[in-house]
Order: sequence, then C-alpha cells, then structure tokens
Amino acid sequence: MRRELLESGRTTHGGWCCLPGPITAEVMGRAGFDWVCVDTQHGLIGYDVLPSMLQALALTGTPALVRVPWNQPAEIMRALDAGASGVIVPMVQSAREAEQAVRACRYPPQGERSFGPMAPLMRDRGFSTTKANDEVLCAVQIETRSTLDELDEILSVPGVDVAYVGPADLGISLGVAPTLDVVEPGHLAAVERVLSACQEHDVIPGIHCADPRGARRWRDMGFRLLAVATDVRLLELSAAEAVTGAGLSR
Amino acid sequence: MRRELLESGRTTHGGWCCLPGPITAEVMGRAGFDWVCVDTQHGLIGYDVLPSMLQALALTGTPALVRVPWNQPAEIMRALDAGASGVIVPMVQSAREAEQAVRACRYPPQGERSFGPMAPLMRDRGFSTTKANDEVLCAVQIETRSTLDELDEILSVPGVDVAYVGPADLGISLGVAPTLDVVEPGHLAAVERVLSACQEHDVIPGIHCADPRGARRWRDMGFRLLAVATDVRLLELSAAEAVTGAGLSR
Amino acid sequence: MRRELLESGRTTHGGWCCLPGPITAEVMGRAGFDWVCVDTQHGLIGYDVLPSMLQALALTGTPALVRVPWNQPAEIMRALDAGASGVIVPMVQSAREAEQAVRACRYPPQGERSFGPMAPLMRDRGFSTTKANDEVLCAVQIETRSTLDELDEILSVPGVDVAYVGPADLGISLGVAPTLDVVEPGHLAAVERVLSACQEHDVIPGIHCADPRGARRWRDMGFRLLAVATDVRLLELSAAEAVTGAGLSR
Amino acid sequence: MRRELLESGRTTHGGWCCLPGPITAEVMGRAGFDWVCVDTQHGLIGYDVLPSMLQALALTGTPALVRVPWNQPAEIMRALDAGASGVIVPMVQSAREAEQAVRACRYPPQGERSFGPMAPLMRDRGFSTTKANDEVLCAVQIETRSTLDELDEILSVPGVDVAYVGPADLGISLGVAPTLDVVEPGHLAAVERVLSACQEHDVIPGIHCADPRGARRWRDMGFRLLAVATDVRLLELSAAEAVTGAGLSR
Amino acid sequence: MRRELLESGRTTHGGWCCLPGPITAEVMGRAGFDWVCVDTQHGLIGYDVLPSMLQALALTGTPALVRVPWNQPAEIMRALDAGASGVIVPMVQSAREAEQAVRACRYPPQGERSFGPMAPLMRDRGFSTTKANDEVLCAVQIETRSTLDELDEILSVPGVDVAYVGPADLGISLGVAPTLDVVEPGHLAAVERVLSACQEHDVIPGIHCADPRGARRWRDMGFRLLAVATDVRLLELSAAEAVTGAGLSR
Amino acid sequence: MRRELLESGRTTHGGWCCLPGPITAEVMGRAGFDWVCVDTQHGLIGYDVLPSMLQALALTGTPALVRVPWNQPAEIMRALDAGASGVIVPMVQSAREAEQAVRACRYPPQGERSFGPMAPLMRDRGFSTTKANDEVLCAVQIETRSTLDELDEILSVPGVDVAYVGPADLGISLGVAPTLDVVEPGHLAAVERVLSACQEHDVIPGIHCADPRGARRWRDMGFRLLAVATDVRLLELSAAEAVTGAGLSR
Repeated sequence: MRRELLESGRTTHGGWCCLPGPITAEVMGRAGFDWVCVDTQHGLIGYDVLPSMLQALALTGTPALVRVPWNQPAEIMRALDAGASGVIVPMVQSAREAEQAVRACRYPPQGERSFGPMAPLMRDRGFSTTKANDEVLCAVQIETRSTLDELDEILSVPGVDVAYVGPADLGISLGVAPTLDVVEPGHLAAVERVLSACQEHDVIPGIHCADPRGARRWRDMGFRLLAVATDVRLLELSAAEAVTGAGLSR
Repeated sequence: MRRELLESGRTTHGGWCCLPGPITAEVMGRAGFDWVCVDTQHGLIGYDVLPSMLQALALTGTPALVRVPWNQPAEIMRALDAGASGVIVPMVQSAREAEQAVRACRYPPQGERSFGPMAPLMRDRGFSTTKANDEVLCAVQIETRSTLDELDEILSVPGVDVAYVGPADLGISLGVAPTLDVVEPGHLAAVERVLSACQEHDVIPGIHCADPRGARRWRDMGFRLLAVATDVRLLELSAAEAVTGAGLSR
Repeated sequence: MRRELLESGRTTHGGWCCLPGPITAEVMGRAGFDWVCVDTQHGLIGYDVLPSMLQALALTGTPALVRVPWNQPAEIMRALDAGASGVIVPMVQSAREAEQAVRACRYPPQGERSFGPMAPLMRDRGFSTTKANDEVLCAVQIETRSTLDELDEILSVPGVDVAYVGPADLGISLGVAPTLDVVEPGHLAAVERVLSACQEHDVIPGIHCADPRGARRWRDMGFRLLAVATDVRLLELSAAEAVTGAGLSR
Repeated sequence: MRRELLESGRTTHGGWCCLPGPITAEVMGRAGFDWVCVDTQHGLIGYDVLPSMLQALALTGTPALVRVPWNQPAEIMRALDAGASGVIVPMVQSAREAEQAVRACRYPPQGERSFGPMAPLMRDRGFSTTKANDEVLCAVQIETRSTLDELDEILSVPGVDVAYVGPADLGISLGVAPTLDVVEPGHLAAVERVLSACQEHDVIPGIHCADPRGARRWRDMGFRLLAVATDVRLLELSAAEAVTGAGLSR
Repeated sequence: MRRELLESGRTTHGGWCCLPGPITAEVMGRAGFDWVCVDTQHGLIGYDVLPSMLQALALTGTPALVRVPWNQPAEIMRALDAGASGVIVPMVQSAREAEQAVRACRYPPQGERSFGPMAPLMRDRGFSTTKANDEVLCAVQIETRSTLDELDEILSVPGVDVAYVGPADLGISLGVAPTLDVVEPGHLAAVERVLSACQEHDVIPGIHCADPRGARRWRDMGFRLLAVATDVRLLELSAAEAVTGAGLSR
Repeated sequence: MRRELLESGRTTHGGWCCLPGPITAEVMGRAGFDWVCVDTQHGLIGYDVLPSMLQALALTGTPALVRVPWNQPAEIMRALDAGASGVIVPMVQSAREAEQAVRACRYPPQGERSFGPMAPLMRDRGFSTTKANDEVLCAVQIETRSTLDELDEILSVPGVDVAYVGPADLGISLGVAPTLDVVEPGHLAAVERVLSACQEHDVIPGIHCADPRGARRWRDMGFRLLAVATDVRLLELSAAEAVTGAGLSR
C-alpha cells in the first residue's frame, strides 16, 4: 500500500471499524473505501478478534490499516503479523517517538521489527523483509498542541509516511470542545499548520473526518488520506433515520 | 411485552439484528425502535453470543425478540431462558406446527416450556410462570403459499399472538423473485389475505419491511408489528452512501 | 463412568454448570463433586464453548456429563464427541423417545451413534466403540405428569441407565409452582413413584436438588445420582451473603 | 461449485476441518485442495465460529462445503446463509430423508430453502435464487447397512448430487471395527455397491479417505469426490513425526 | 461515581470479578455491592471480553471499575472507553507514576486522555469531557514497602482519588507470606501508615479484603472503599461447602 | 519446570503454538514434546484465549511456556497467573532489560511479581511464592547483533535461566535473509557465541529450530532447550504433502 500511495500522489478515502467482529469488517471492506482501518485504540476491539477482521478485509481486497492502542513496538508488530498493510500510531509527540514507531514497522536495517509475519507469509508467497519494508505504511498521529512545536522534527524522520491529524484530540488540547468539525480559528490554524508542514516535508497529510462533507473540505485543502466514516456512527445514524423515517414517536 | 401489545392495540416498529455481537445490539437497542429482534435464523448469530446480545438489549430497555432458527422446542426455550421477551418462529405451515410453537413458549398448563429461566430470574425478582405465560410473545411466520390455505386454522390456535409475514419467502413460493417490495398482484393479494385473516381472528398482523417507506405502506394498511430496518443492511447502505458522498470513484 | 456406577451401587453427588466458560468449569471440577454436568439446556452455554469446558473438567479429573438441549441425536452425539462421559436427556416422555436417546449414545449394534469421537480419541488411546458403549452414561429426565404413566415402559428400555427427576418441571405439570423443594403431597408422590419404579427396573434413580440439604433427603430415600449445587446459584447466594456479611444496607 | 462438478466429470480432492477457528481454516484453504469441508458434525465447531471459517476459506478462493450436524433444514440453511457452497448431510437413510435434504438446499420451486442468504449476497452481486439452486451442492452420506437397500430410491431423488460414503460408520453397521481402511470383504462390497449405484444413477460417488494413499485407491476405482486429509489428524501425525524426528524419547 | 464518593464521605463495598464473561459479571452486578471491579490484572480477563462485562454491569446499574493490567495510558484509556466508571491502577510507586495514572484518566487540560469514549457516548447523551473528568475515579494501588516512603508525594498528586492497599503484595514486599489477613505487626503498621496518610491528604483510603469479616475490621478503622468478595473465591468456597454439606467423602 | 531443567542438565525439545484455540493446544500437548510454548508474540493469540490454551496443555501434562509479546511486566505476570510454567521474553538487549524480565517472573524478595496467581492456586494446593520462584522458568531471547556485545552482562544476571536464540531475527540484524537454517558464517558465529557464553555462565542455551533436523544439529552442538516444530507450519506442510500425495495437480 505504501509505495503506491507515496509514488502516485493519489488521494484516498477510508472507512473506520470500531465494532468488533469479522462480519462488520467484511461489510466495511465491501463498501468501496480505498482502505479500512481497524481501530484498536478507541474501538472496542482486542487482539483476539483482530486477525479474523483482517482476514475479512483481505477477503474484500481492501487494504487494511490498524490503529494501534499506543505507540508500543509489540502492538505495532502484532498488528502487522496479523496482516495489516500499515498502522496508525496515536499520540506521537516527538521525533524520538516517531522514530520508535517507524522502527517497529520496519525490519533491520531500517528498523527493529521482529520476524514472524504469520498472516503475510500465508497470503503472499513473494513475501520478503525488503518488500515488507517497502509496503508497510506508517502513519503517526498529530493530536496535541505541544506536538505542533515538534512538527518539523517529526516529519523529518525517515519512514514517517503519513501525518494523521486527530482533530478531536488536537482541539481538546487547544481548549476546544471535542469535535471533528473544525471551525474555531486556533483549531483550524493548527490543522493547517500540519498540512503545510507535510507539504514541506513531503509527507502525506491525513485527517480524521466527521463525514463525507467534512472529508471533501479537507481534501480540497490538500489532505490526501481521509477517514470518512466509522461503522458505529454509520449504524447509529442510519438506525436513527430508520426510526424517524418510519414515523415512530416513541 | 405481549399483554401490552395485545391490549393496547398499539402499532410497533422494530429493528433487526443479523450481525453477531453485543455492541451492535446495543447500538440497535438505543436507536429508538419499539423492539429489536435478534435473528438467529438468517443472521450469522449462534447461541454462544446470543445471551450477551440480550444483555445488551436489556441494558437499553428495548424489548428483545429472537427469531429462532426453526420451529423446534429447544430453540424457542433457550432463547427465552436467555432473556428474550418473545420469539418469531419461521416457516409455520399448519395449526399443528403453530401449536407446537405456542406450547414451547408457555409453561404448563398452557404449554410445555421446561423450567430454567436463567436470565429472566436474574432480571425480574417478580418472575412467575404465570407472568411469563402472560408476557412472552409468540409470533409465527407465514411465508409459503400452501400456508395460506391453513391460515384460519393457524390463526385459531390460542396463543398465536402475531402472524408475521415474510414477504420474500412468500413471494418465492408464489414464483416471484425474492423481494420485500411487494408489487406483484398475486404477491400483494397473499399479504392482504394474511392481514384480513388476522383482523378476523384478532391476531396481530406483522410484516418484515424493506425500509421505513415500506413500513409506512403496510402500517397504513393495518399491519401492527413491523420490522423496519436490519443492522447489516443499514451498515451496507450508509457505508455505500459515505463512499459516494465523499466523491470516491475507486 | 457408566459401568462403575452400575456395578458399584454407589451414590454420587454432582455439580451443575450453567455459566459458560472453561474457568468456571475448572472451579466446579475442583470442588470435590463426583461428577459435574454442563447444562446446555437451561444454562447459557452453546456448542462453541462446550469443548473447552469439557477440557477444563477433564483437567480436574472429574467426570463430565452434558445435559443436552433436547432429545436429538445430533445434540447427544456432539456432546459425546466433545468429551462428555454421558448425557442427561430432557423431557423424555415415552419408551420410543427413551430408545432414541439410548441409540444416540451407543455405536452399532446397540445403537446408531455416528463415529467421529474427536476428543475421546485424543484422551484415551485405548478407545473402542465397545468400550464407549460400556462407559457412556445415558440418563433420561422424567419431568411431566403424563410420563409417569409411561414409566414402566421407559425404564424397561435397555440402556436407560438413569431416570433423572426434574422436580421443578414435574411440579409445574402437576399444577405446583416451580420448586426443587418437594412438599406438596401429589408432587412428592410423583417423585416417589419414579424412585420405586427405578428400584423395580434396576435403573439408577437420580434427582435435581435445590441444595445439599435437599440432596440428603433424597439420598436417604434411595436416590443415587444427585445434583446438589449449580454454579450460578452458588455465586448468587454467596455474593449476596458477602454483601450482607459486610453490613451493606444499600 | 455444483454445476461445474456435474458437467465436467472432474474428480476432486478435499481437505477436512475439524478444528474450530478461522486461522486453521485459512491454512487448509491455502494447501491446494479442490475444496475444503468444515465438519460441524464430528468436528468441534459450533455455529458461532462457522461464518468466520467460511470467510477464511472464501479468502483463499477454495470452495467450502459444510458437513451439517444432522439432516435438519435449519442446519443446512444456516450453513448456506453463512457462505457454504454446499453441504454434506450425514446419515441419510431413505428417499424421504434425501428429499428433505435436497429441499433444504434449494429455493422454491425446487425446494423450501428460506430466503436470507446473508454471506452470499455480500460476496456475489449477481446472486439469484436460480443461480443458487444451480450452484449449491447437496451430498448425502451413505453410512449404514440398511441404507444400502434404499440406495436406488435415494439416488433417484432429483437434486442428490453426491452420495458420500462414510466408511467408518458403514463398517460399524456391518460389524467391522471403525476404520477408513476398507479391507473386510463385506465392507468393501458395500462401498462398491454405492459406487455402482452412483454410476447407474448418474450421481457423483464420494468417499471419506484415511489419507492420500487411500484416496488414490478409491479414485482409481471411480470415486470422484474424495476427502483426503483432516486438519486434526494432519497436525497429530506431523507433530508426532517431529517428536520422533528430533529423537525424543520422553 | 467519583464526585459522589468524594463529596459524600460515604463508605462503599465492592465485588471483584476475576472470571471472564458477561453472565458472571451480571450475577456480581446484581448481588448488591456498591460497585464491582473487573480485574484485568490478576483475573483471567482480556480486552475482547471486557466491553461485554461492562455492558452486563451497566445493565445492573452497579458502577463498574476496572483494575488495569499495569500503569499504562492505553490500558487505562481503553477501559474507560469501554465504559468503566474508574480504574484501579496497580503498583504505583512514585508521584511521577501517580501523575501518569491520573493524566491517563483525564482529558486536557487536567490530563492527556485521548478522545473516543465509545461506550460512554452511547450510554450518556449528556457526556462531556468536563463531566468525565469530574466523574472518572482514579485509584492508585499502594503495595510495596518502598512506596511507603513516597506516600506523601503520591497522595499529594491532584486527581489521586483513592489510595488502594493491596495487602498481599504489600506483605510480600515486607517479607510476610501473601495474605489478606493482616496480623503481622510490621504488615499492620504499613496498612495503618497508608490510612493515616490518606486522612491527612484527604484521599479516600481503600483496601482489598479477604472477606466481609476482614472488610468490617478495616471499615471500623476508617477505610472507605473496600473490596469484600471475589467471584472465583466465592464460587470455590460455596462449591466446597456444597460438597461438604452433601456429606460427600469422595 | 525450572529446577528440574537446571539441576538435571537434561536437553529438552518443545513444540510451538501459533494457532489460537484450546483444541490445537491439546493436540500439541499430546504429541510427546517435553514442553509446549504458546507464542503470543508472533502467534495470532491474544489474552482472551490464552487461559483456555494453558488449561488444555495442563490437561495433557505437558509443561507450558508462554512467549510474551514484549518485555513488559504485565505481560509476563499475566501469562504466569494464567498458568504458564515459564516465559520466553523476546528482544532482551541489555542486562537491565534481562533484570526487568527476571523481576517480573519472581515474587519479592527476588523480584517484583504481583500476587494473584489465579490458575496456579487452583491447580497446586501446595503453591507458595517460594516454590513459584523456584519453578518459574525465565528465558530471554538473544536476537540482535548489538545484544552480542552485552551477552556477558545479560547472562550474569541472576535468574536468567535460558538464553534463547532467535536465529531469524539474529540473522536479519546481521544482514542475512530471515531463516532458521543457519549457514552464513557470520550468522553461525553469532549463534556459537551465544552457546559458548551460556556454557561459561552456566545458563541453559536454547534455540528456535526450523524442524527436527535442525534441532539435532544444534543439540549435537550443545543447545539444551530446542523448539523443534510449530503448529501452523506442521499443518501447512502436512496439508501440502496430502495434496501432493493424492496426486492433485490443481
């Protein structure tokens, strides 16, 4: 997934899985997104169910990312061993932390990933550590005010493929109530700061969106990796619409 | 649930769970439906996960029905022991089969339900077999052409609370391609036949709907228990809309 | 388990598992019961978790029975293939039904059990169909009034090892509120009727008890296979005692 | 799967899954078998894990069969709704039972399958009931002596695609110790009887084999659908070989 | 839960879940405890089953705490996202570690909790980060000798709501065999040291008790948050009593 | 396990579990290995399924090790609480890290293991912290080039029982493609370096092998703890052989 993204300059749109289980994952994988991310940070998804969700996504042919619970080598490596095409690493706040994330994604000599890619070896007979290092995407999340001061250092770390903005957390750290609809000027300036730094450092700018409308706004501004919808939210909203549509007054 | 439905004459609208797992069940339970049915016939849901889904629905305060895989006493009793407020029994084709379904729902002397209501005993300190017999809803599905000839006998069986039309199966048995949108005249006549028989026999007429629009049509016609949306379909459609809405052309 | 029970004339006391999961099963298996029964009829236990519960019981060295959801060959055979030492079959109401239960427990020529004993083959290198036929216990539950009239026929069926009284269901069918404390005269007479018929037909009399006190009463009367405690009830009562013991007044 | 098998006259070789879980299923699906059968009769596999195993097999592109626990409509329909390409139905002993199996596999007018193909609808946008009726394979197991007398009637039932010999059960019913190595003359004669009846009735002859050697024997004789290896047995044998190969003497 | 505890000065008694699964959790939640803690440190409970256990506890209306496996931000945040009302953090040994625990419990500006409260958002439509910061309880465990020297610093950290004594670990670090019955003078002195420090710093003193008797002792001494019973121990003891009570001599 | 290994000087051979689930674990436990290791680093095994796998291994009487995901106290302690006889700790690169691993394995005063051994307490009535400290095996993995420089310091840490070579990772860090067949001279020299250091420091030398052949080579050289086969690889290879053996040409 990585090489193609880096070389094509393409903008991609993703779906987000917070519901545990391989059937919902297959539904998300078949919806037409460019990629689907399984969220093991805020989604209610543990490691026991993750491999089957990645099987379900592989079945649909949609590349799968995993948002790991935290910037820890074991979490990153286990997601990749289970078949993820890349990871989104939350709360990266310094160049040192970004390096740590990158090194967990790459086999030596580029990093320190431990060898044991159980699912990839099953699914790709041409698997090699070199190819894996080329293909595994490493996205770091930029989501606190203090990180903005470290931005140039973070984006200069080789192997940081994507800087992914978490607008809700970034907002909270700026004193704004949590929202994916960025309207407060300071909040917006912070997002734009990440975007311009990405463009300067040739890193793909990514952002978590509230919905397709939000996604279009950021895409027009230059963001290239956009999460446009989350399974649990889609289900909540569409179920509520069904209730309303049926004229229920309960 | 049963007594209130029977006495109030109220029309109710339900949600349908085909996705296994208690988190999706909680989402459906919070959407505002009058009841939610966990489908263990066509949904990909086995008995191991069912009790936790019924816990999730109980948490939301929304009454839970279970569509059992088949008209078998053990399936009906186990769903009730796990906390269902009632069952929808597929493919009931004769008065004898309807009686069998009813008897599995009721303790003696009205039926043959075996005693061991593990979840109900936990959740209702006032539980009694009499109260359970009063409250457990028994819906039988009318979904084949040949059943129409048995309709009066079936609806005359004491304890058949709801006759629930499965339009897709009913259609297939009439030579119509499977659909919840009933337009073919013979198909529509069959649905109307069930409705009028229900009215005659004082049985609640129910029907499986494609969506809220469909639900409104049947409600206006007199149906009183309507399934208006299914989780897997809601997720599929809303995810597809998100993809379209984001202007993806993949 | 069967041969020893039949030949020794020993009275045995069992524990009852209604909670799903292999850890609770191990706790019950280590408590000192002569056997433990996993209840897949009224317990909230499906077939996916059953094999691991039988592993846990095997680990403790305590023989495991399974109460199957219903008198169906597949349910009986699958419990045995997963490692049960015998089955308790609910709601057996005639000699024909008893024969059906027995035949599902025994390989030809004594019965019709299908060959594929996955867990037994792993755990017993000396496994043979003859040995299995000798060792698998078949208990039929006597729990409705009408069954009392069929008792002699049922207990005459070769291979019916135990007649297991379900006092709650038996009581309900006699018009008594569901209880394991048998005090109503007609209720008691029915239980005694099963006991004497067992003694006449050389079948082991068994009974489901409310607690150890109840068990002692029935044992003194002659019952030989007694379930004396259920995991969910033990946990409920002991937790309530802990709350009271701590002087909580909530 | 069905049409191709019926029209090509091809001989196919399958793998057999008795171990629950989607990872082992993926391994079996990638081994190179023509099809893989998930055994929910003798395998320790319940309905909760089945859909994820069928996802895993779909991921490998290997057609998946399911051996259902018993000849019951709900079991057959649920396996198909979860994505199986066909079913193997155990212990079919008469034409009536064969018809029942076939009818559960086919939508009206050929049968009585209820509509709700959740997994097939997701995976095949061209799904139709007609196509499903064409493609779903129905194999009935011939595994008792008495069935041999009904063979012509059974194989004359339209829609019985495969007669699948279970040599172990067939042997037991003939008084032979359970084995997949058929050497006893009466046992062999029974197997040959099924083969010739298949050839006469234009039904695909299938058989459960002990290992590849056994498979070659039956194939040379004319069997066309052969299960050549079972996951649990492969793992047992190869692990034992590893222990021996390492020179362990434990 | 937090504000009420802090403001009321009330003493509360809790139950402890070490058995995985939502049914046991519901039983514990219904027993009458003021709160129930799901132990993911020493209980055999992973993250896949935790959300359903918190659903079960929510169903009972009993506030749920989670003892996290270790003082790591991701563990704390995931427990809260799954619906816990607070956390108990093991092995906190310094003010810096206490701060880290507190910061993981609170959104900015009080802490660094990342935004994505999936279960709380479903269950509380009035959810806000401010309210969450007010309500989420943070208990740090005091359980090593060396920690006693840091006690004043630890209890001075704003947001440390409870200092929870783990008597077994504290004992071991003092050279006493692991026990919840604190009798050794040095052991007792250490516990009293924590109590008096709590009173001085206006932190709620909590302690893990062997049983209700032990709880009463500590409560009389001034402890205000007491775990009085653990599911696995309750089940072990009550099952053993049942065996003894039945007069088994096995 | 530890004391016997250390005192006997015995060479042992192990099996490796990467497939989740207690049935495959039982198969591996019955194969005849001296021990079986459940790999929660590269295997697709989370903490929810681990306790049942350790039950299955305990049932077979084969000592169980767990390879933890990373050198973190919580991971080590939880594996031991669930019943492991010891742990294999990946990527230990310094004496400080080795000490941390050892301290997580031992109760005070030798270490900092927190008390709550749920499974061991159930299975061993003679459990004590002293006995546990004597018996729990601590193996550290040597698998990077830079670690070789720290080898003497690492192996001097009291309580490091085994130095376990991961040849694949060690090779990658030396610029060799990942392989368990060590032929490249620098790669071999590194392995030999670990062996001789072990002999010097009286630490048991262990190594991960490709297969029994590889195991014999290393054993002849002096390695004493050898993993000779992995479940997923055994299944892959034996299934592929079955396909070939059946003459499939697919």
